[in-house]
Amino acid sequence: MSYVLYYSPGAASMAVHWMLIEMGVPFEARLVDIDAGQQRDPDYLRLNPAGRVPTLIVDGVARHESTALLMLLAERHPDAALAPAPSSADRAAWLEWMIYLANTLLPAMRDWFYADSDGDAAGADAVRALARRRIEQACERLDAHCSEGHAYLVGGKLSTADLLAVMLMRWTRNMPRPATNGWPHLASYIRRLRALPSFIELNAREKLTEWVNEKE
Amino acid sequence: MSYVLYYSPGAASMAVHWMLIEMGVPFEARLVDIDAGQQRDPDYLRLNPAGRVPTLIVDGVARHESTALLMLLAERHPDAALAPAPSSADRAAWLEWMIYLANTLLPAMRDWFYADSDGDAAGADAVRALARRRIEQACERLDAHCSEGHAYLVGGKLSTADLLAVMLMRWTRNMPRPATNGWPHLASYIRRLRALPSFIELNAREKLTEWVNEKE
Ligand SMILES: N[C@@H](CCC(=O)N[C@@H](CS)C(=O)NCC(=O)O)C(=O)O
Ligand SMILES: N[C@@H](CCC(=O)N[C@@H](CS)C(=O)NCC(=O)O)C(=O)O
Repeated sequence: MSYVLYYSPGAASMAVHWMLIEMGVPFEARLVDIDAGQQRDPDYLRLNPAGRVPTLIVDGVARHESTALLMLLAERHPDAALAPAPSSADRAAWLEWMIYLANTLLPAMRDWFYADSDGDAAGADAVRALARRRIEQACERLDAHCSEGHAYLVGGKLSTADLLAVMLMRWTRNMPRPATNGWPHLASYIRRLRALPSFIELNAREKLTEWVNEKE
Repeated sequence: MSYVLYYSPGAASMAVHWMLIEMGVPFEARLVDIDAGQQRDPDYLRLNPAGRVPTLIVDGVARHESTALLMLLAERHPDAALAPAPSSADRAAWLEWMIYLANTLLPAMRDWFYADSDGDAAGADAVRALARRRIEQACERLDAHCSEGHAYLVGGKLSTADLLAVMLMRWTRNMPRPATNGWPHLASYIRRLRALPSFIELNAREKLTEWVNEKE
């Protein structure tokens, strides 16, 4: 099994990058600098016609959509146990969290960060206002779930749902209401996940210094 | 395995309802009239705190998110073969289509139909304008895929991706540019899928008369 990940630091590629590191499988990482517009290079557009990151080359074929890639990797590496096994009791909850994050929170983030370029600049404030409301509702829901004594989103152990959730939570850091402010259960969940060696290694490799736990 | 589906005619429950009929498994269907606001009845909110349809009771536990339910049912009923088997060559493409539909098209539909109530009425036109753009881009992409000779979205045969796509396409029927107008390959894909006996049966059970193929 061979993997090449096209990533941009801190972007939607981050959860996939994290998972590859956490699983300890060999892969090659190639930087696509989205601030420099490299996602629109003709060579990259051949791999990803939408001009987005991530792209994961899986055994020679370009694949897209961070959530789908997490699910695919979980299936290809069952020993890493980053998803409940099919037919296990936690499987339905895992699918539900993955899809909820993918279809409620992720698109709201796209709206928040890309309202001006995906849509008309004149309407961007209205789009961002609705995005903010949805993002805060999702934080509320995550906080409520963590308040019920769940250390992880699914089944009492780390899964791809946590990788996806924490990546998305990181994007709130400069928003009016960051996920770490005012949702105490969510904040301690985030601190616990950020303490994982794989998250620390991920930040080192992507050269990210913001939104990490303070040294004790 | 026992299933109870809470559905509203033509709503996001439709793909799950279709799948249950197509697979021929026993299930009970219970109507939640969303035009009458029944999704906000306290009894229903206990099953689905977000007040949405569908809810599928799976062996006594309430589950949500249409896309997740399609994936769950595909796993529980491998003989129905409505998803490529894990580790098969088409699996990655299936995951990618499911997630693309769930995170690009489905949220844009939510924006189109619920901009006034999910957000501020004053900003609703701007939200709808961006939603329309994204929906038409998705139609474009589906049309391009069908133009490459694909009779179905994945692997040359019917899968949950088609059930989800056709449900979403149905929702364009009263939009400024319905999926059946101006995208010829998409239109013939839709006509082919609408001819399935399970789709005809689905419309009969949900008492839907719009957006069906004309009798020959
Ligand atoms: N649904 C996609 C979203 C990917 C996405 O929007 N990526 C952003 C970075 S977070 C991107 O590539 N932006 C560059 C651009 O749109 O020009 C996924 O989850 O993979
Ligand atoms: N992401 C959910 C969306 C469900 C949804 O938005 N359903 C709509 C009908 S299409 C609904 O229940 N609307 C009633 C309401 O929001 O009050 C899913 O795919 O199941």
